[in-house]
Formats: sequence, C-alpha cells, structure tokens
Amino acid sequence: MQNYAIIVAGGSGSRMGSEIPKQFLPINNKPILFHTIEKFLQIPDLKVILVLPKKDIEYWDSLSKPSSFQSGFLTITEGGASRFQSVKNGLGVVPQDADLVAVHDGVRPLVSLEIIQKSYEVAAEKGSAVTSVMLKDSARRILENGDNEAVDRTQYRLMQTPQTFKVSLMKLAFESPEQPFFTDCASVLEYAGHKITLIEGSYENIKITTPEDLILAEAFLKKN
Amino acid sequence: MQNYAIIVAGGSGSRMGSEIPKQFLPINNKPILFHTIEKFLQIPDLKVILVLPKKDIEYWDSLSKPSSFQSGFLTITEGGASRFQSVKNGLGVVPQDADLVAVHDGVRPLVSLEIIQKSYEVAAEKGSAVTSVMLKDSARRILENGDNEAVDRTQYRLMQTPQTFKVSLMKLAFESPEQPFFTDCASVLEYAGHKITLIEGSYENIKITTPEDLILAEAFLKKN
Repeated sequence: MQNYAIIVAGGSGSRMGSEIPKQFLPINNKPILFHTIEKFLQIPDLKVILVLPKKDIEYWDSLSKPSSFQSGFLTITEGGASRFQSVKNGLGVVPQDADLVAVHDGVRPLVSLEIIQKSYEVAAEKGSAVTSVMLKDSARRILENGDNEAVDRTQYRLMQTPQTFKVSLMKLAFESPEQPFFTDCASVLEYAGHKITLIEGSYENIKITTPEDLILAEAFLKKN
Repeated sequence: MQNYAIIVAGGSGSRMGSEIPKQFLPINNKPILFHTIEKFLQIPDLKVILVLPKKDIEYWDSLSKPSSFQSGFLTITEGGASRFQSVKNGLGVVPQDADLVAVHDGVRPLVSLEIIQKSYEVAAEKGSAVTSVMLKDSARRILENGDNEAVDRTQYRLMQTPQTFKVSLMKLAFESPEQPFFTDCASVLEYAGHKITLIEGSYENIKITTPEDLILAEAFLKKN
C-alpha cells in the first residue's frame, strides 16, 4: 500500500523581517524546507507532496536542490487561500486507493524520524495519529463572563505535526465546507465525526516563525 | 506604601546536565539569576527577597556580586520543600502592612520592565495581576473516557510570572494547606476565593530549563 506525506509550506517572511518566505531561510546553510523534505524522504517508498504558494513556485524552481528531490518521490503542487485549502489541494494529488497520508508543516524541520514512523504505524491501526505535547505551564480558561479559572493542565495537549490519517477518511473529511475553527487537520477530521488518536511529540519539534526560532533550531540541529 | 518582589530560585541543574544549579548558569557571562534580580532592582524603592535552596546559599555567598545587590534592597531567605513552601518562606519576610508583592521565577531573566511595572499597577487596582500569554498551537482536551476533543484555543492562557498580589490577600491565601493543584500563585489565590486578573506577558519571557533555552535567552538578550 502506498503512503503519502503532504508538506505544507505556506508562510510569508513577514514575522522574520525577511523578503524570503520563512520556509526558505537557511539553518545550517540549507533552507528550512529542504531539511523537512529530506526527513520525510528518508522513509522508504514514501511519496511526498510539497504544497507551495503560487508566488513561491518560481523561487523554488530557481534553487539548486539535492539529488534526492529528483527521484520521483517528490511532487510540487500549488497552495490555496488558507491552510485548509492548501491541504485539500495536496490531497487532490493523493490517489483514492492510497493508504495513509501525513500532513506536516514545512517549517517543522526538527521532527524526528521516530515520530514520523510512529504516526504511520498508529494511523494504520487507529485511523489517525496526531502528534502532541503536554503543557509545560499552568493554564487558565477564560469564562463567558470574562472571569477565568485554573484548569488541570495534565488534561490538555498542544498539537504539532505530523498529523497522519487514512486517506479515505481524510478525503471525505476535507469535502466539508471550511469552518473558522479548522485550525489543524485533527479539527477537520473531528468535525467529520472521527475520533482522534494522539501520539507523543517532542518539544524540539518547533514551528519556526521568528528569528529567534531560527537560532533555537540551529541549536537543536547542533545537538542532534 | 512599600512594594516587594519574591524571586524564587529553587531549580537544580539536572535537566541542564550541569553541576551548577541552573539559575547560576551564565548568559552573556552573568548568572541568569543576576539578570533577573537586576531587572527588579531597577524599580525604584522596591524591596527584593531572593528565596534560595539551603544548599545554594553557600554558593551564593561565594559569588562576587554587583554593588546594587549590597544596597539594602535585596534580602536572602531559605527555600522550602516545594515552590509553595518557598514562596511562603519569602512571604514570611514581607511585613504585614506592605502593599503589593510580585512573585517571579528566578530563571525568567527576560521579563521586561514594562511587564513588571504593569503588574504592580494592575494589582494595586484589582488585587491581582497574573502575567499570561495566548496559546500559539491548536489544543485538545483529554476526556474522562480517554477520548479527546478540540478546544477553542482563544479561550485559554498559559501562565508566566510575575504574578503580583496585594500582600494582605497573599498572606491569607498562603495559610491554606498545600494542595496538589497549586501549580502557581494564581491557583493558591483562587483556592482562597479570589478572582484572578490576567495581564499580557511576552513570548520572550521564557523559563530557562534546558541547554537550548540558554541559547534562546542569549539570542533574545542580543536582540534587546
């Protein structure tokens, strides 16, 4: 059975103070996005779909790329107006009879191979595998009257990617009309009536969105 | 009216892989804790109480310290077996007729002067001012049956320090027997029946607990 990964690379460089879209900024002298793609291409036989904003495809074409990117396991497709639409466009490239599909943020290059593999294993059994971590800090909930109350932080998880699902469930769920509370794939699948299985992520699996995140990412890369 | 700050420095170096307790590790060639204390000593007339584990007081005494630490505005006291007990010991040094007291983590050296000042201003008016930030990621809640569901992340806040309160409320609240859900001062004050007022913190106001946090802290210091 064929498995897929959709890597969503939709961000601008605005919060980076950079003209270059953030996913193309270098860590250890290589674009963030290259690190991310190479991580997934390490999984044998996995097909990777890279979703890029239309405006960035020309830039992508201009880059000199690792030979592994020319192996036929990487396809480029155009993003949409929102993350939901971009994932949906990526899904359009996945055949109906494919088995599993992982969705991953292009700017999370530090995901471990173990987490990616685990997400496919668990999704094969349970239908879904969504990477998440515990809260490190005390948390409070804002009530309707504007007051707030302590919540038991052990009962909450923060979502990361990869978020991996059976392709058949995923395609059906993404036929739903887009909702404002679709903040990740798990919320889309839940809306379509599916239970979500959580797997353990990592505090190193950061989403790079600020200049300081770049420095942190290089520190993690150096350590590993 | 006299205001106070209690700086709680209770951590070990274990997660740092260091013999030196983490609050004494250097950023920009100066112990983390010195940065934190100096930030609070910038507030005119503020009295600062540093709560140190008994085993670290000798180490503290051996350090050569900035002259501002000898000004009479800094007092050292011994910590307890838990964060609750350490804060309570610090409170023991605060006179009953003092006005406001901020509690702050010794390993949060990047707190801005603006946030500290704001916390005293709001606590003077409302009785409490607890620093917090929005969630950046999608979040889910674990249900009693083990399933999980998406939550509206805009309705949640992650707590930081300073957490600032009227001394009279604080002293009474810390007479409560310690509870397992006392994860910060806000939870102690809430247990004693007080409403908690939240103020806006900063993503730069990190708690330094890992070697990568040290690198991130230096990057923030360099920027500011």
